[in-house]
Amino acid sequence: MPASPIRKLVPYANSAKQRGIKIYHLNIGQPDIHTPKVAINAIKNIDRKVLEYSDSAGIPALREKLTHYYRAQNIELSKEEIMVTTGGSEAFIFAFFCCFNPGDEIIIPEPFYANYSSFANAMGINIKPISSTFERGFALPTIEKFEKLITPQTKGIFICNPNNPTGYLYSKEELHQLRDIVLQNNLFLLSDEVYREFCYDERGHFSALNLKGLEENVVLIDSFSKRYSECGIRIGTLVSRNKELISSALKFAQARLSPPLLGQIAAIASLDVAPKYTADVYKEYLQRRDVLVEGLNKIPGVKSLIPKGAFYTMAKLPVKDSEHFCQWILSDFEYQGQTVMMAPGSGFYSSRYLGKDEVRIAYVLNVEELKKALIVIEKALEVYPGKIN
Amino acid sequence: MPASPIRKLVPYANSAKQRGIKIYHLNIGQPDIHTPKVAINAIKNIDRKVLEYSDSAGIPALREKLTHYYRAQNIELSKEEIMVTTGGSEAFIFAFFCCFNPGDEIIIPEPFYANYSSFANAMGINIKPISSTFERGFALPTIEKFEKLITPQTKGIFICNPNNPTGYLYSKEELHQLRDIVLQNNLFLLSDEVYREFCYDERGHFSALNLKGLEENVVLIDSFSKRYSECGIRIGTLVSRNKELISSALKFAQARLSPPLLGQIAAIASLDVAPKYTADVYKEYLQRRDVLVEGLNKIPGVKSLIPKGAFYTMAKLPVKDSEHFCQWILSDFEYQGQTVMMAPGSGFYSSRYLGKDEVRIAYVLNVEELKKALIVIEKALEVYPGKIN
Repeated sequence: MPASPIRKLVPYANSAKQRGIKIYHLNIGQPDIHTPKVAINAIKNIDRKVLEYSDSAGIPALREKLTHYYRAQNIELSKEEIMVTTGGSEAFIFAFFCCFNPGDEIIIPEPFYANYSSFANAMGINIKPISSTFERGFALPTIEKFEKLITPQTKGIFICNPNNPTGYLYSKEELHQLRDIVLQNNLFLLSDEVYREFCYDERGHFSALNLKGLEENVVLIDSFSKRYSECGIRIGTLVSRNKELISSALKFAQARLSPPLLGQIAAIASLDVAPKYTADVYKEYLQRRDVLVEGLNKIPGVKSLIPKGAFYTMAKLPVKDSEHFCQWILSDFEYQGQTVMMAPGSGFYSSRYLGKDEVRIAYVLNVEELKKALIVIEKALEVYPGKIN
Repeated sequence: MPASPIRKLVPYANSAKQRGIKIYHLNIGQPDIHTPKVAINAIKNIDRKVLEYSDSAGIPALREKLTHYYRAQNIELSKEEIMVTTGGSEAFIFAFFCCFNPGDEIIIPEPFYANYSSFANAMGINIKPISSTFERGFALPTIEKFEKLITPQTKGIFICNPNNPTGYLYSKEELHQLRDIVLQNNLFLLSDEVYREFCYDERGHFSALNLKGLEENVVLIDSFSKRYSECGIRIGTLVSRNKELISSALKFAQARLSPPLLGQIAAIASLDVAPKYTADVYKEYLQRRDVLVEGLNKIPGVKSLIPKGAFYTMAKLPVKDSEHFCQWILSDFEYQGQTVMMAPGSGFYSSRYLGKDEVRIAYVLNVEELKKALIVIEKALEVYPGKIN
């Protein structure tokens, strides 16, 4: 199992910090946004003598409340269709266990969130990447390209919408194309929608759960982490209208006993957050996106699309090997005592040789810091020896 | 994947509750013991704006503090050898992923904690049970019996010490026997020691980590859940002196991002608990054990050994099919508006036909309730139609 490309650079970052250099962390999806006060207060006000197991499927009150949350997103669900998991991570582990057997193949548009592949590898599930490209704006590959990849072993398609790492937002039309492929080939469609709240496009978000006729096929991976900036509570959900699948997932849930109690208490409270919180967070990310993308495109040789969702962009840099650049900027460069940490693009591609001139940048820092980070990147590219002119 | 035998009876219990019957839950390992106040206060006093990811391997201060905890248990470790997991459950999932491949075999003395097998099944790992029997006091099977089971596919032995469900405490001598088998066959030895604090024998607990020469072979599964009665915080540890194994586990840990932050905050505080807490809890369980075992052995036809650890006993009942009895006592019996829920023994055996006259009883209720539950069992056996005379 390969080391996470995002975390591979950690020793270089630690060493830079030891030399007294300030690092702007554009490499990880840990926002600086405050967790809602209602969530933190719910934790501060706990009145329990025993911190005991909760139901394996999650506290019933949380599952019930989630039906209201999803209804507000135009997704009609019963609480039996919602299982609480230990973060979105566990939701995808359970989904993999329930939907696939060793030797099965899943098609995933690349670049994709690298952590998917770690557990898939360990379970003997083969990921078949299908390229989405910067040049096509990271749009969904054509149906023909999907059809070429489908074999008797193909059992599922996995999408992330809005997309980490590209920021691409799939359109309703693209999801309908996926529906046809899924139905024709009797596949599971796993949809990671943890960035649902962060869509910067008037068309808004269209959930895979709203694809008619796919009730037995769609599995939603979801999480409280990004929505309420509470990544540490480790609360996510696995959602499906496929009763057999939920019943199978429940067996895994029972085998691991229960999701975290304290995180669930924070999650229940988070669902009561004032609409102003969500609106303010949205505005903040939109502003950050604009500052970042405008700034990147002003740097000679750098290109970024305008991401329509999530809080990442896959930017093109004028370098031969972005992994080397990301290491070099930590180990051999500083500008006024500062440098930046970014995630090399190649780590998000399963196909070798792709993403060599790309980096994933997370806009999880405030505008002032983003501006400073942009200056560092510009200054670094002026002197970087591996630059392409 | 089979449904958890412990949870299979839940619908019958729910139905009994709806009929207004009080149920004594002897079926689960959820103690009624209070969580230490220091842990709950640490949660109430959190002073954070963002509930963020922690390090994938766990908060460094927690890992550091755990080295002191283990030192007090005569186990010398560095913090690099300790990884924080989401409960003991995740520790065994990681251990399975790191130590074994599909097709590999693990030998586990049965009866064993049923949840081990769920994930093993899903990973294609074959569990080879080796019988420990009531008649031999659930002692470790002989070396010869282990040797008969070992094939080229055998890659590990998994023990739980003190044992869930039998309450058996392995002696130093038995562990040395295991050491020889492990070394001769180059196996991993996975040792679940989550009940370490609950040993009712002057010999005390001997940890697999203290077996000389097995530094590369031993993997410890541990948890805060039972020790501090905080099952819901979902904090455990995976411990090994095998650097390659810990490095491999770290990759899985990174892929799931981080263990629960709030649970770790409670865990850090729990390690400061006053010695009186631990001593009081110990005395309480000892008293419960004595009341339960004495009471069971007074019921005609019922037999229990004296468990030397954990808080379970595998009792023999004078019935043909304990699974039927456990269901019947919920669905067709009550004594003064009360009944009991127990875990059928067969669910803890991988070999068919074993454990048919056994039940696992957890002494996680107070002495008064245990006494009432014992009366219910006695009265039930007097009228149960499937009784053996």
